[in-house]
Amino acid sequence: MVEPATATQAAAPAVPQLKDELDIVIPTIRNLDFLEMWRPFFQPYHLIIVQDGDPSKTIKVPDGFDYELYNRNDINRILGPKASCISFKDSACRCFGYMVSKKKYIFTIDDDCFVAKDPSGKAINALEQHIKNLLSPSTPFFFNTLYDPYRDGADFVRGYPFSLREGVPTAVSHGLWLNIPDYDAPTQLVKPLERNTRFVDAILTIPKGTLFPMCGMNLAFDRELIGPAMYFGLMGDGQPIGRYDDMWAGWCTKVICDHLGLGVKTGLPYIYHSKASNPFVNLRKEYKGIFWQEEIIPFFQQAALPKDCTRVQKCYIELAKQVKAKLSKVDPYFDKLAEAMVTWIEAWDELNPTGAALPNGKAK
Amino acid sequence: MVEPATATQAAAPAVPQLKDELDIVIPTIRNLDFLEMWRPFFQPYHLIIVQDGDPSKTIKVPDGFDYELYNRNDINRILGPKASCISFKDSACRCFGYMVSKKKYIFTIDDDCFVAKDPSGKAINALEQHIKNLLSPSTPFFFNTLYDPYRDGADFVRGYPFSLREGVPTAVSHGLWLNIPDYDAPTQLVKPLERNTRFVDAILTIPKGTLFPMCGMNLAFDRELIGPAMYFGLMGDGQPIGRYDDMWAGWCTKVICDHLGLGVKTGLPYIYHSKASNPFVNLRKEYKGIFWQEEIIPFFQQAALPKDCTRVQKCYIELAKQVKAKLSKVDPYFDKLAEAMVTWIEAWDELNPTGAALPNGKAK
Repeated sequence: MVEPATATQAAAPAVPQLKDELDIVIPTIRNLDFLEMWRPFFQPYHLIIVQDGDPSKTIKVPDGFDYELYNRNDINRILGPKASCISFKDSACRCFGYMVSKKKYIFTIDDDCFVAKDPSGKAINALEQHIKNLLSPSTPFFFNTLYDPYRDGADFVRGYPFSLREGVPTAVSHGLWLNIPDYDAPTQLVKPLERNTRFVDAILTIPKGTLFPMCGMNLAFDRELIGPAMYFGLMGDGQPIGRYDDMWAGWCTKVICDHLGLGVKTGLPYIYHSKASNPFVNLRKEYKGIFWQEEIIPFFQQAALPKDCTRVQKCYIELAKQVKAKLSKVDPYFDKLAEAMVTWIEAWDELNPTGAALPNGKAK
Repeated sequence: MVEPATATQAAAPAVPQLKDELDIVIPTIRNLDFLEMWRPFFQPYHLIIVQDGDPSKTIKVPDGFDYELYNRNDINRILGPKASCISFKDSACRCFGYMVSKKKYIFTIDDDCFVAKDPSGKAINALEQHIKNLLSPSTPFFFNTLYDPYRDGADFVRGYPFSLREGVPTAVSHGLWLNIPDYDAPTQLVKPLERNTRFVDAILTIPKGTLFPMCGMNLAFDRELIGPAMYFGLMGDGQPIGRYDDMWAGWCTKVICDHLGLGVKTGLPYIYHSKASNPFVNLRKEYKGIFWQEEIIPFFQQAALPKDCTRVQKCYIELAKQVKAKLSKVDPYFDKLAEAMVTWIEAWDELNPTGAALPNGKAK
């Protein structure tokens, strides 16, 4: 049996890192009482709350937090017709927060995620670990058997080429979940009682050329390096699919990171995921995705980007073209999605006009 | 500070798995007192001891173990002129043991490796964990963020394609080391006091297309699936290089496993590695390898095998050809090594005449 941490105060660092360079993005439909538990860790940071569903409802944020909140009316007002690319009635709306942020880094977390404990019982400052992950390099070109070689007490093992030991910049830090694992509806139905109690004390780089299922529940990234690829797609209201928003973002992001020579890490930190979503509702949302992913994943595994794509935006537009050309035959939905991907980039560039000419990585 | 386990008796399983299907291969130059600690775990199994160095020396094996022992005279007698492919005065000689075994599985361990403890203080039965790894499938085509999905309490996460959940046969189980990490000479020199104290409770499949530094200290494999690729090369006496025997085997093995659709796992089990080898001696052995690996690794990363290579032997002979064609320019040593690779396969087939026509995997 795992339980969330109770006293988190003691685990807060005296000087919170990247305080003015990181926004915490939270999509929600309810009052944010869950922030109470995170207060010692999150309070120094700015929050961007994306309110999903009925915009007339008031979301209560605990006192003392510095935040901006956007509801659907705000999104429509700011993006105009381009608001069509932001999902409604689905946590995919969170990516609007990535777009309006003015910071270099984003941490995003779901409002049913609490502070987990490490095996010694200490509250885990998830944000602090994500920052460590993002500020240390990644090693996508060769596997290190002792995991992240940049951690204290670890290094590159015998046989690791010295020319690769500088690593590459880390664009994404993917954190995990204790208690309720991130299972799909069929697995939830088959294993209703399974809980994740295994604390794996590792961070590792997902190798170049390998795709992974990116979960948006506990995720951080470098907005300057990879932000425009973090589009969570068209999900929820009016769409034939849900619960593939983060997966879509993960596949696109990984292909672009691989192309640009950027790193994706997974592993620590853990959060405590409190409540399993309803597997029957999830099955309805996922149903088409279960079929589609069998074609989408080979598509992304084979996707290649031209050498002149040195900016994320350009990579992403190119991917949108390939989605239209190759996935539309799977379902007309992908036609619409490909168009929304282009709209997303247009909206991103409109809200983020500076620095648009700088490359984000070294394309190979 | 980590320490080895002291009482191992209690941790031995009542019924040792694969008792008649697995050999334990140990290369050594000294009396095998280290087996005392492993007795409860190893005694049910057959040992193949490969005595390195002076064949007139007598190696003492503790009472009660079932073993066969080969010294250099035996190797020369059994292989005749083909004995030239077996290294002398280097633990690379262990691969002779793989060749003379008649079993399906091999576990190989160094004689300075003791029983490690898990975080609860329990002695780790490394062999039992290797067997678990080898008997459960691998997942090389897509990364599972909760690590090995076949372990108790774990599964495939949301977004993992259902068509890939059967996995593929596991050919290799690569275990890790607490206490003295497997560092190269430069890292040993720079960090003489570094000890690995981090117990990472994970097993994972190394993705297809990703190379890794395979260490021979604590390693198990399916001899029927991949045995002929486990050649530890030409090292030690009369050779310009040492300490790359297991690395070479790992690179060849991984390329062939990827080609044949077989899996390689790394992570658990840990052994307790008791003593760091002399970094000055190691530097002399590794010196050329430090340069060469910068060219060898790209070579293996780009190596492609033809579709008609469906048996490990054929894959290996093809790799030998490519080594000759592409690495001889690095150093004439690779010419000699390529020839030894062919000799190794000839010797293997001579000692293992049956089943030579069966494919080892599904080449793509």
